[in-house]
Amino acid sequence: MIQKTKLAVVAVSGGMDSCVTAAIANKDFRLALVHINYGQRTEKRELKAFNDIADFFDVEKRIIVDFNHLSRIGGSSLTDKGIEVSKADLNNKNIPSSYVPFRNANIITSCVSYAEVIGAESIYIGAVYEDSSGYPDCRPEFFEAFEKVIETGTKPETHISIVTPIIHKSKPEIIKLGIDLGAPLHLTWSCYQNEDEACGICDSCALRLRGFQKVGIEDPIKYKLRPGYL
Amino acid sequence: MIQKTKLAVVAVSGGMDSCVTAAIANKDFRLALVHINYGQRTEKRELKAFNDIADFFDVEKRIIVDFNHLSRIGGSSLTDKGIEVSKADLNNKNIPSSYVPFRNANIITSCVSYAEVIGAESIYIGAVYEDSSGYPDCRPEFFEAFEKVIETGTKPETHISIVTPIIHKSKPEIIKLGIDLGAPLHLTWSCYQNEDEACGICDSCALRLRGFQKVGIEDPIKYKLRPGYL
Repeated sequence: MIQKTKLAVVAVSGGMDSCVTAAIANKDFRLALVHINYGQRTEKRELKAFNDIADFFDVEKRIIVDFNHLSRIGGSSLTDKGIEVSKADLNNKNIPSSYVPFRNANIITSCVSYAEVIGAESIYIGAVYEDSSGYPDCRPEFFEAFEKVIETGTKPETHISIVTPIIHKSKPEIIKLGIDLGAPLHLTWSCYQNEDEACGICDSCALRLRGFQKVGIEDPIKYKLRPGYL
Repeated sequence: MIQKTKLAVVAVSGGMDSCVTAAIANKDFRLALVHINYGQRTEKRELKAFNDIADFFDVEKRIIVDFNHLSRIGGSSLTDKGIEVSKADLNNKNIPSSYVPFRNANIITSCVSYAEVIGAESIYIGAVYEDSSGYPDCRPEFFEAFEKVIETGTKPETHISIVTPIIHKSKPEIIKLGIDLGAPLHLTWSCYQNEDEACGICDSCALRLRGFQKVGIEDPIKYKLRPGYL
């Protein structure tokens, strides 16, 4: 087995996309994992998924970042109890109520601070643009612009690139890739609504279930409801 | 008096630069103030300065962001007890030990999240490039690059500019401007080392004291030591 010497920081929410992204990074890098608590409804369950995934990849370097200001700022159904989590409408082209303002920028900045200190040269993030919910901070041009910010805002000797290996993949493609790489999809959590059993009807559950359906495999996690209309 | 209708978010550390920046923004905007705790040695004292300044400007909208991950990540003498706060060497062109990796990016991202939700169109930050300590994330090109990130990473209807009104000013110019605008410099805190009386010998105290000396005015805050060698 080849000894991996280079370090990559991976942002791992605990969902499928970041789990598969970690599996991709794991091929070439030693991993350092960052997880963000941002006061989302399913914060505890996602943290458990994060730690389960980190244990699976035998990762020692991990950091939990507490961004509770995002829930105090509000503006998203994920963090603001006053805004309802919308039922899935996968044909709706508007930005959904679950959009957390500038969340990915908050995530990347903390990854960059960590990467600069531990000497990691890559940050992997499992953002998905196509087949996604239409969040503006998942667009390729957002990440390209962010690399310029890293280049100008860190020490001259620091060189960190942002890697978004699944940004143009569809959910079924991500699931297939995860299975091929042996990613622990059974440990992941995607539901925006519940922490015990996935609801099956929020945006995130709907995307996940439809993805597994298209691959023709049963999602290994438990659902309260598996709608047939997807 | 003209009624100000537009909102600006100002990042206020509690130091002189951000206090003067708030005074500048206050001419044209209603203020919303953001303060970052990042586990720095003088966190409590800076928070008091922030609240004193916010009270002075009669600001209701204020948010305290807790970035304790920055101290857990370490890598800076401001947050890492294992690294000594260096004595001032204002001719040293290297990046000083007090550099907190990517701190300004962390600050701006939280300001953007806040600005997007409350509908502010400008973010004011009191970064100083010339006559500064040489932090990479105080360079004009860093802020220019960040505006592109905001443009690509927020909702289409969100338009937020970053304003750095003192970036090319020297410390004496900032002090003079603050006095002209009636900024409450007596409420500010700059020392990196102490919380009771400013040490007078850290980078930040040295820059501040030298600034007042050049203006020919006595700094209104108390010092443990006012070195004559500046």
